[in-house]
Amino acid sequence: MQEILNNENNQLLTNSYHCWLQYRKLENAEKYSKIASTIAVADDTVVINSAVNELKNALNSMFDITPSVQPFPTNEYSIVLGTYESVDLEEFGIARELFSNLNEEGYLLKYAENQKQVLLIGKTDQGTLYATFHFLRILQREESIDDLEIIEAPKNQLRMMNQWDNIDGSIERGYSGNSIFFNDNDFTNDLTRVRDYARLLSSVGVNAISINNVNVWDIETNLISEKFLPKVKEVADILESYAITTYLSINYASPMELGNLESADPLNEEVEKWWAEKVEEIYSYIPEFGGFVVKADSEGRPGPFTYGRGHVEGANVLARALKPFNGKVVWRCFVYNCLQDWRDRKTDRARAAYDNFKSLDGQFLDNVILQIKNGPMDFQVREPVSPLLGAMKDTNQVLEFQIAQEYTGQQIDVCYLIPQWKEVLNFDTYAKGEGSTVKSIADGSLYGYKHSGIAAVSNIGDDINWTGNTLAQANFYGFGRLIWNPDLTTDEITKDWIHLTFGNDPKVVEEIEYMLLHSWRTYENYTAPLGVGWMVNPDHHYGPNVEGYEYSKWGTYHFADRDGIGVDRTIETGTGYAGQYFEPNAKVYNSLENCPDELLLFFHHVPYTHKLQSGETVIQHIYNTHYQGVEEVEDFIQRWNSLKGKVEDWVFENVKDRLQRQLENAIEWRDRINTYFYRKSGIPDQQGRPIY
Amino acid sequence: MQEILNNENNQLLTNSYHCWLQYRKLENAEKYSKIASTIAVADDTVVINSAVNELKNALNSMFDITPSVQPFPTNEYSIVLGTYESVDLEEFGIARELFSNLNEEGYLLKYAENQKQVLLIGKTDQGTLYATFHFLRILQREESIDDLEIIEAPKNQLRMMNQWDNIDGSIERGYSGNSIFFNDNDFTNDLTRVRDYARLLSSVGVNAISINNVNVWDIETNLISEKFLPKVKEVADILESYAITTYLSINYASPMELGNLESADPLNEEVEKWWAEKVEEIYSYIPEFGGFVVKADSEGRPGPFTYGRGHVEGANVLARALKPFNGKVVWRCFVYNCLQDWRDRKTDRARAAYDNFKSLDGQFLDNVILQIKNGPMDFQVREPVSPLLGAMKDTNQVLEFQIAQEYTGQQIDVCYLIPQWKEVLNFDTYAKGEGSTVKSIADGSLYGYKHSGIAAVSNIGDDINWTGNTLAQANFYGFGRLIWNPDLTTDEITKDWIHLTFGNDPKVVEEIEYMLLHSWRTYENYTAPLGVGWMVNPDHHYGPNVEGYEYSKWGTYHFADRDGIGVDRTIETGTGYAGQYFEPNAKVYNSLENCPDELLLFFHHVPYTHKLQSGETVIQHIYNTHYQGVEEVEDFIQRWNSLKGKVEDWVFENVKDRLQRQLENAIEWRDRINTYFYRKSGIPDQQGRPIY
Repeated sequence: MQEILNNENNQLLTNSYHCWLQYRKLENAEKYSKIASTIAVADDTVVINSAVNELKNALNSMFDITPSVQPFPTNEYSIVLGTYESVDLEEFGIARELFSNLNEEGYLLKYAENQKQVLLIGKTDQGTLYATFHFLRILQREESIDDLEIIEAPKNQLRMMNQWDNIDGSIERGYSGNSIFFNDNDFTNDLTRVRDYARLLSSVGVNAISINNVNVWDIETNLISEKFLPKVKEVADILESYAITTYLSINYASPMELGNLESADPLNEEVEKWWAEKVEEIYSYIPEFGGFVVKADSEGRPGPFTYGRGHVEGANVLARALKPFNGKVVWRCFVYNCLQDWRDRKTDRARAAYDNFKSLDGQFLDNVILQIKNGPMDFQVREPVSPLLGAMKDTNQVLEFQIAQEYTGQQIDVCYLIPQWKEVLNFDTYAKGEGSTVKSIADGSLYGYKHSGIAAVSNIGDDINWTGNTLAQANFYGFGRLIWNPDLTTDEITKDWIHLTFGNDPKVVEEIEYMLLHSWRTYENYTAPLGVGWMVNPDHHYGPNVEGYEYSKWGTYHFADRDGIGVDRTIETGTGYAGQYFEPNAKVYNSLENCPDELLLFFHHVPYTHKLQSGETVIQHIYNTHYQGVEEVEDFIQRWNSLKGKVEDWVFENVKDRLQRQLENAIEWRDRINTYFYRKSGIPDQQGRPIY
Repeated sequence: MQEILNNENNQLLTNSYHCWLQYRKLENAEKYSKIASTIAVADDTVVINSAVNELKNALNSMFDITPSVQPFPTNEYSIVLGTYESVDLEEFGIARELFSNLNEEGYLLKYAENQKQVLLIGKTDQGTLYATFHFLRILQREESIDDLEIIEAPKNQLRMMNQWDNIDGSIERGYSGNSIFFNDNDFTNDLTRVRDYARLLSSVGVNAISINNVNVWDIETNLISEKFLPKVKEVADILESYAITTYLSINYASPMELGNLESADPLNEEVEKWWAEKVEEIYSYIPEFGGFVVKADSEGRPGPFTYGRGHVEGANVLARALKPFNGKVVWRCFVYNCLQDWRDRKTDRARAAYDNFKSLDGQFLDNVILQIKNGPMDFQVREPVSPLLGAMKDTNQVLEFQIAQEYTGQQIDVCYLIPQWKEVLNFDTYAKGEGSTVKSIADGSLYGYKHSGIAAVSNIGDDINWTGNTLAQANFYGFGRLIWNPDLTTDEITKDWIHLTFGNDPKVVEEIEYMLLHSWRTYENYTAPLGVGWMVNPDHHYGPNVEGYEYSKWGTYHFADRDGIGVDRTIETGTGYAGQYFEPNAKVYNSLENCPDELLLFFHHVPYTHKLQSGETVIQHIYNTHYQGVEEVEDFIQRWNSLKGKVEDWVFENVKDRLQRQLENAIEWRDRINTYFYRKSGIPDQQGRPIY
């Protein structure tokens, strides 16, 4: 931890380390002071103890007092922590049935003034922990508790974080330092940050985590061996104390690499036996182990294809091994031909997930969950929703987002993704007729999935503020809040984060909210236009490179020529991808007239002079948005600079520095995109702005 | 050495290791057998000993005998090795004055039949060594020695090899394994390959070498410290025994990094003193040390600019330190702005060397030599000759080639560069009127330079055949022969190499000669057209990427748009680069009508429909050459395959494998270049061949 401390006074260099759990001293502490001095605890579990500790520290920090912790019941004004089993609810006028409709993670927050007590009551201890964090949000935001009575339960069952951390300490697509879990081919010695990460995760309701990269290399393969399992257990214990279940990403070739078998064929009996014994071994260390995350037969990773087997056989052998322990297999659907020939116009990466998995519906065991990226490509700033979502009524699905800003500015550029995720969650797939939203698929209600939920690629590392750019904390926070309850508005989530992170100064709230809420569109404005995507530098994916992927084996194209641009994915003349959607979506996307502007070039190849629904031509839209994008970043900079002195100096400089780099990036994008298309089209900007 | 041996019988895996020094058994040995059994040695020096050893081993190998070595004179039929000082020439009817016109490295080869002796007589022992290798070439090629009487001396004074070897064992722009000098941050333990490399170098007349990369990183900086100097001496001793002088590339910031001075300002007295003492220290280890190679203020390397000084001050401080020991400073002119803004059309990298150095003529001390790349850019497959060559009449110049095929196929693709280098050497700069060829600049005759010559970046590594592709040995061989005597024809050099490497089978000679002599044009055909260059993948520089450098800080552009392509470097409307040449070259390049087709796009921006002198349009030329390039590679493959059984299996497979990869590369180039320009121009191929 030393590196994040100021050596002179051993203080943290910035409060940004605490993210939204800063527990800033309250301005009007007296209105809560009656109840803040005592914590009454009705249960003694590891998770409740975590809640008590959090509460104690928070009250200490916000009220500058040391609350006494007593067993429940007590007659004093107090905050009561317990479960509905351990607290006699009828004494507080609460019907016990209230809880029977709540899922296991639900909770009640209530101020029972007559009884002098605030109740933080979970259906289980996990609910109590969530209730505690919720209550602390209320206190930090200085909301009234006079009429406090809130009943809450998460909408999604699996709320998962995927670390892409490698055991050498690097993070694939990490933009905020190195891993907090691993270092130098082993677990880190000091697990303080793992504990603090667990607090952050559970404070926003995340209940599962896979701690290693989905690309499992040589050394990581050993995470499920006796060499590393004791350390995995140590980490899992910490996470478990915050009600977070640990998963591991595994190497599909483990039976060969660890077991010295000659095959990893899922239908081979020895392989089946090996997995069964391996899983038993893992659970002997970690009884609460969650299961495996698997990237198989994808981007060069091993998988069942080697043996002429498919995803069903591949996943089910693991599922059978995990079943006795209630473990799950999270099987990623990011499977496509990454050795494509650019000359082949028929192969379409966008089609791949659907083409690979759709026909397998109903064949996976019930503890297999397919993890599907939100779009058919790979977390571009703008993509349509993956047509596989909702297309498998008899197969558990989990939706995957990417908090790490791989294609959206890499935590240099501000790009607040909650609005994007809201659009995805609210998208109507029409899988079972109108109202078949993505969120109803993810929460399992549409098809009655046994398991489902939402996962995301983490954006944190060992930077002092966890996320490189402090504003990127908002994506982590927002992800948790949103997947707990997809019906929360962007506005609610955003305001909450700003208040908890920056306090209540209206000017601060206003400017930051403006920046966050506009940032996604701004990023889209100065990067790849109209849904075409992929105009980034290969490999590292930052900065513009219009032809970067145009002739690559990764198979993503824009086909820009002197006349027009876009990928024809229509049914009649294109790759047919549009036909993977349910009607009426298929028809809308397939139609040049009705396809939304923002996805036009994803579905259609059009002349530069094509008129958008907005009334602009494609080429003029490109010019306009790119000039506009830069102007918006300049505006962000002005807004941010106006906050000098109003936010902590460290944070001010952190964001200021990144905004400057964002501006350079935006200018480079603007000029390269505009120049590229001007050179190709020969059509000048109507406003005569400089193009090179 | 173990890795290049077949473990079972401890034999070399391939004769390719011996390159052109295979000393294949002679078919008609008897015609030389009289003289082959005795070696008569007139001098006892390290270099003569090397010659004797080479001769002994070669005779043993070619004649299957062990010649006796005797002191000269002897009455037996023998081969006499000595210098003109140690052998009484008049006894052989040779006028001693013959040698007074020869430079120190010259020699005489003569069969004095009456005296029963073949004379290998050097002006110095160095000449004797060269005479020995020359004689062995004659034997290996089974030429008649009946009338043998050859007088030879190198045309160029400095004939230098630049290793770009890093001390970690990697080689910058190395395409044939790791360094033979360094490994794991130290010198290699086994110097066998260094000795064999020395044999190869001296066999073709190379007399100087810089053993470390011109980019001198942290650890390499220490090569001139006591930590490494004993090892440098060990290597230098081996090289010296083959008459090769050792140079080191140095870090201009050495006074700070090694000497703990606060500055490396060349006008600072302490710095001056530090260099003087450092040079003295180096010479105390290596009395025959050659001097320093310096890349300063180039591509981020430190240099005098930091202190507001220029190249003159920068080089002269080193020159003063080296002067007492007859050491030299080889100062590279590869200086340009590598942080260019692509929007800035006025900055032109092609202008940089001339702009940086031309005005400094006459200011460098006489032991400074400016090393100038053959073209103004960076070893592209086609560039004009650097206008700096010949532009400084009072400053020593050395010409730099690149044997390593960085931009010319990376020793995967066959690209025989002797024809390119011949063009450069024969180019008339008109610096002092007609006949001011580059070769007359390099050999010092045009301006009477005190020091001059030709250097090249090496293409060897620790691959068993030294050069990755065995055919790439021809570039190493040819470089040495050509710079010894730039008037040798390509045909002579090529035939020599093939005979020495593959023997005398006419079919083998014919096919390989065909491939070599066509390969440069073939490579040009399928890569960047008409001199425009740089359409390669950034960083590693292999394979096509038309826009790879178009928007980069490295500053090299083609400006292709929907109407045309090329860089306007004319005097009137362009960067003015054409004006850096002497007349009439300036006028020719500046003129759209007279500019040679092959350099058209280097000097002019023209419409795709522009008619070349060949009668073709630019666009049709692009299509034609790219289809043709692939067909030529297919033809090479057929020709090579016809040699199965006629060349050693290992070599056959080595070249076959690389030709296959070359074909894939050529197809990728063809399709990407043609597609790119078809999309941009919209003009179809007249022959309707497939474009994607």
